[in-house]
Amino acid sequence: MSESFCESYEVDYQALINIIREKNASRIFIQAPDGLKKLYRCIGEYITDKLSDIKIYYSASPSFGACDIPLEEIEAVKPDLIIHIGHNKYPFLSRKINYDIIYLPAYYKWKPTNNIINMLINEFKKYNVKRIGLVASIQHVHSLEEVAEKLEEHGYIAYIEKPAYNVMMPGQILGCEYSAALRIYSKVDLYLVVAGGIFHALGLSLIVDKPVIILDPYRLQVINPSSYIKRLKAKRYYVLSKLRNELIRNAGIIIGSRPGQYRPTLIKYIEKLLEEHGIKYYLFTSTYLSREQLISIDNSYNLDLYIITSCPRLPIDDFNDFYKPVITPGELIMVLKNIVEKYVYPW
Amino acid sequence: MSESFCESYEVDYQALINIIREKNASRIFIQAPDGLKKLYRCIGEYITDKLSDIKIYYSASPSFGACDIPLEEIEAVKPDLIIHIGHNKYPFLSRKINYDIIYLPAYYKWKPTNNIINMLINEFKKYNVKRIGLVASIQHVHSLEEVAEKLEEHGYIAYIEKPAYNVMMPGQILGCEYSAALRIYSKVDLYLVVAGGIFHALGLSLIVDKPVIILDPYRLQVINPSSYIKRLKAKRYYVLSKLRNELIRNAGIIIGSRPGQYRPTLIKYIEKLLEEHGIKYYLFTSTYLSREQLISIDNSYNLDLYIITSCPRLPIDDFNDFYKPVITPGELIMVLKNIVEKYVYPW
Repeated sequence: MSESFCESYEVDYQALINIIREKNASRIFIQAPDGLKKLYRCIGEYITDKLSDIKIYYSASPSFGACDIPLEEIEAVKPDLIIHIGHNKYPFLSRKINYDIIYLPAYYKWKPTNNIINMLINEFKKYNVKRIGLVASIQHVHSLEEVAEKLEEHGYIAYIEKPAYNVMMPGQILGCEYSAALRIYSKVDLYLVVAGGIFHALGLSLIVDKPVIILDPYRLQVINPSSYIKRLKAKRYYVLSKLRNELIRNAGIIIGSRPGQYRPTLIKYIEKLLEEHGIKYYLFTSTYLSREQLISIDNSYNLDLYIITSCPRLPIDDFNDFYKPVITPGELIMVLKNIVEKYVYPW
Repeated sequence: MSESFCESYEVDYQALINIIREKNASRIFIQAPDGLKKLYRCIGEYITDKLSDIKIYYSASPSFGACDIPLEEIEAVKPDLIIHIGHNKYPFLSRKINYDIIYLPAYYKWKPTNNIINMLINEFKKYNVKRIGLVASIQHVHSLEEVAEKLEEHGYIAYIEKPAYNVMMPGQILGCEYSAALRIYSKVDLYLVVAGGIFHALGLSLIVDKPVIILDPYRLQVINPSSYIKRLKAKRYYVLSKLRNELIRNAGIIIGSRPGQYRPTLIKYIEKLLEEHGIKYYLFTSTYLSREQLISIDNSYNLDLYIITSCPRLPIDDFNDFYKPVITPGELIMVLKNIVEKYVYPW
């Protein structure tokens, strides 16, 4: 089981060994997203096989992105080197991390078969499109070129663009960063998202009003998320239109503490915006915001509205059905500045 | 609602105002356990009523004790002063916190009625006891003297002792610290725990083999937890006896990162102990350990055993029914040093 899992992802183990040697590191802290935590064993065995006297600490915490570095754990055990698996460097880190961090992506080993390309083309035909914008989550960016070639063999024109940030790879999108898609917006008729599940496609569909299709390399499926997207957008617009018609007296601002989720400039902007609109606000800090925590805060202050500044996906994915409005900073701007024609995402 | 909640706890608001003035603090970070988070509003309103230009950050994270200070959140917003509500200072803080922390207990306002004292005495009669050891969680320590007086009016002898640590109050116990009870062990026939729920009584019953009765001031109930305690002890002994009879090849050590839950000396001791017994071990760090996290780690390394060094209540209260053995450091010592006659708790 474990061996086959180790084989299913391409990780640059040699680069890892080189950097450990180069830094002369003996205490290493390794973090991976929950879905990739099985790699702990693969990486751990590789390191201890090649190097001796290495002490490895594995983080048990989730890692929802490279924004999500567990500083408190790191500062407890004081490692010489941090290995962050599965993501490349986050472009918006706002807190200084006084440790060396190596970002080591894990690429899913997979090749687009004719079968899945045919499934894709069947889906594209429903939209009568020719120009396809290709984007992917980092686990699948390396297969974009091959998908593009295959599509071009079938007469499509494929676009893969570099994101606005150098740390990210061509075609790469994050749950909160879609410049690789936005930069080809005027050129394409449809977006193809190569990723597991609908998470990345969902975020993209909140900023582009063009069809979005998913190629899921894990399930070997082509997914058309349009009905889910439609329902979700309707929900968001419903929350926002209700807020527009109600008197908002007070609000809670949720502040994240993870190095890439603490956004002081954004927080200040929101404070100012709320003040200008005569809305009283209260500040709450959190590492991971759970439903229980939000209920607990609401039990105390019973506020009209919660704005989450840590991760814009929390209101959309986790608190979409909360009993009080929980919105993103972009949605607050839409409500208070009365923007209706365009969904403002993510900030 | 909120007003009556504010009234139900005695908090030294004046001391709080004095210290804020004295420290000339303008950015304040407030933390309270989930059960006391309603006090955020009471305290916040009191402060903003008396002082102007104060910015308050409320932690949305849980607080399972004064061991559980959310360092990462604090270091993000960099407050001038931290107010920790509901606990007094933790005696075993192992990580330095470079911030001023004021510990402000919240005492539940309550007086023992004749009715509840009669309920107590009915329970005591079943045990034919005379000498009662009184202990309480911090919310109720201030009522111990009055309970003692009432019991003495009925011919009982009551003992209230100072804990081994000066930061704690007479009769006070924590989920992991029971010196106030142990110091009167030879004098008493039965322990009375004044606390909400069975949490504190459960911990006490793991180290003393005398009857334990609970007076719950919230529910106004007298609870005899003996059947629950019996079941729990049987479960722990079952886990330990199985471990004694099985070959333990490898183990995971869970390391906590909260200032009072990181225990480097204990971790080193456990590492040495495992090495001496030829058991391979792996180190995992966590802030809050959830079931999902433990499953995720186990999916990777598939270990025989997990030892939790952060909080000794996690194996007992949260992971008692986990599909792999999850034990306290004390329990590991019992297994490897073959201690059977005495339950080693908490460390």
